[in-house]
Amino acid sequence: MSEKIEFVQRENLKEKPDPTDLSFGKYFTDYMLSYDYDLDKGWHNLQIVPYGPIEISPAAQAIHYGQAVFEGLKAYKHNGEVVLFRPDENFKRINHSLARLEMPQVDEETVLEGLKQLVDIERDWVPEGEGQSLYIRPYVFATEGVLGVRPSYSYKLLIILSPSGSYYGGESLSPTKIYVEDEYVRAVRGGVGHAKVAGNYAASLLAQTNASKLGYDQVLWLDGVEQKYVEEVGSMNIFFVENGKVITPELNGSILPGITRKSVIELANQLGYEVEERRVSVEELIESHKQGELTEVFGTGTAAVISPVGQLKYGEQEIIINNNETGPVTQKLYDNYVGIQSGQLADPQNWRVVVPKY
Amino acid sequence: MSEKIEFVQRENLKEKPDPTDLSFGKYFTDYMLSYDYDLDKGWHNLQIVPYGPIEISPAAQAIHYGQAVFEGLKAYKHNGEVVLFRPDENFKRINHSLARLEMPQVDEETVLEGLKQLVDIERDWVPEGEGQSLYIRPYVFATEGVLGVRPSYSYKLLIILSPSGSYYGGESLSPTKIYVEDEYVRAVRGGVGHAKVAGNYAASLLAQTNASKLGYDQVLWLDGVEQKYVEEVGSMNIFFVENGKVITPELNGSILPGITRKSVIELANQLGYEVEERRVSVEELIESHKQGELTEVFGTGTAAVISPVGQLKYGEQEIIINNNETGPVTQKLYDNYVGIQSGQLADPQNWRVVVPKY
Ligand SMILES: Cc1ncc(COP(=O)(O)O)c(C=O)c1O
Ligand SMILES: Cc1ncc(COP(=O)(O)O)c(C=O)c1O
Repeated sequence: MSEKIEFVQRENLKEKPDPTDLSFGKYFTDYMLSYDYDLDKGWHNLQIVPYGPIEISPAAQAIHYGQAVFEGLKAYKHNGEVVLFRPDENFKRINHSLARLEMPQVDEETVLEGLKQLVDIERDWVPEGEGQSLYIRPYVFATEGVLGVRPSYSYKLLIILSPSGSYYGGESLSPTKIYVEDEYVRAVRGGVGHAKVAGNYAASLLAQTNASKLGYDQVLWLDGVEQKYVEEVGSMNIFFVENGKVITPELNGSILPGITRKSVIELANQLGYEVEERRVSVEELIESHKQGELTEVFGTGTAAVISPVGQLKYGEQEIIINNNETGPVTQKLYDNYVGIQSGQLADPQNWRVVVPKY
Repeated sequence: MSEKIEFVQRENLKEKPDPTDLSFGKYFTDYMLSYDYDLDKGWHNLQIVPYGPIEISPAAQAIHYGQAVFEGLKAYKHNGEVVLFRPDENFKRINHSLARLEMPQVDEETVLEGLKQLVDIERDWVPEGEGQSLYIRPYVFATEGVLGVRPSYSYKLLIILSPSGSYYGGESLSPTKIYVEDEYVRAVRGGVGHAKVAGNYAASLLAQTNASKLGYDQVLWLDGVEQKYVEEVGSMNIFFVENGKVITPELNGSILPGITRKSVIELANQLGYEVEERRVSVEELIESHKQGELTEVFGTGTAAVISPVGQLKYGEQEIIINNNETGPVTQKLYDNYVGIQSGQLADPQNWRVVVPKY
């Protein structure tokens, strides 16, 4: 087993929130993982420290030029065990995001080990209710206090933990209403859409608000070049069931390569579905819906897991999917996915990573 | 005259940097302007406070989701007077940027008045050397400590000041070498390219580094849809002189509406040039260069003022502009622009705003 990293204890632990009223990303645990980077020392000073305010320079590059990336994953508690789900994929992706913004790579194993030790300390914070989890937010941001558009010379990595209920507040597997966004654009090839960078999310707010005002839960983004091909939802990738085939937009450089997306593709293959990753136009969807061939739509993402879509709005057209009910393919993928996560089903690929007791 | 805003004095003033070695955005003055926003109170707590580290929540939305915008302008000292240049335009633009990221509008006059009082206090920090100025950085970022992609409920506006030399380090009016970027894309219509938001700059770093490695000073971005039309340079808008006409890409939703661009267009009109704002393809530039019609290229921006371009590289083609020398139109616009800024030429539009002694 790895060495224990430095642990700076706090005097008093916080009171834990009411588990029936967690909401999402609102409460934080007692500790966080902290790691510093500068040009001389590289990554150094890996510590578990009390969760609390951080000091930054008013010129810190992250808040001026957006050099900031993040990840999101969850820890679950089942039968007393605390389990992470494919956390190696998140640290692989954070390195991918870091590279896109010219930020320094991290050693994936070191940070994952740090996360495990942190979660071990905080295991009492992992909620056990249905749909609940400990949401884990690793992130890296530029800290150098100099103005001038160039990569920062110093960075901070933090991992903070938030006991959370289900992302959309409502019940899981209740179908959502999606607005196909044909004016605002999230990303374009050659840009940063394929990386989990801070700026992508601020850029998405206005479209999301407009959709909400019109009564829709989420925005479905189209490609930036032709505004014809479906890309992804706010914080989910998107899947379609057409003629029994499971179809999702291919990773084209502007779509975030979701880890849930990847797992669902692997799972669908194992369950015997034909899976296609390819371009999907809105026109195709409307046409195949008309023909009765588009039977299900669902989103995938860490926060929302697998989330059925009941309605799609595109311009003047509104299509209802599967009578606004969760379809059989969505249900089957969901059951299998959650079954593996919870340890109730076999886990041949070792997606579950049990957090050891140090 | 307006009321004086609250002023929290520091105990000891800093030592001022060597004026012959300022570089850009590296030194900061003794004080900064600070202004807070929350849902209950709106904007409140406008103060001039000592420049120094700020405390933020580890969950502050700005560093996770990039809800952060900024501005850049300069104060000059001429004959003992400290002068701002069209500062009202910067606060108009910050409101434009704030709106794009669903951040709250500021009252432009209140913030400009705060800036003037701050600069008045810091007037000894305004350098007087050739090409030197006090660089002014107003910015607003999301401070609420909650994870979840939605507009923050609280924000901070700060204005920090940095005595600076010329932006590119070298002499002004020495022609730069520009790399036309045909792989990476900065912005696309429907996105946030027209706003001065943090994420745009982090997204530009990789292309800039690649261009630097190849020996170029700056990247010239192409449009995100067809990658054929010229948009702008890293932190400058771009102008061409073709057959004596002054031409610049039209504001199409993905280009930042530069204040120097606007001033140069107005100036060029006054000086009797024909000015065109329209789409400009790279192919047109190469063709008109071949015909001897493309006689000058220059960039415009607060940091670099007016900066001649001596060389353009596009794929395998390299074109030399005006024998790598500053051309007559560029020179004339520069002389007039700087003449107005410095008070040596008449200022009929009242672009100069003298900072009063409070
Ligand atoms: C833009 C975007 N797309 C898709 C996803 C889904 O990715 P994952 O399944 O890794 O959570 C996310 C969330 O991480 C996201 O932010
Ligand atoms: C992307 C970009 N384009 C153009 C400009 C030039 O704008 P301005 O003349 O207002 O400084 C800037 C700098 O502000 C910029 O950041």
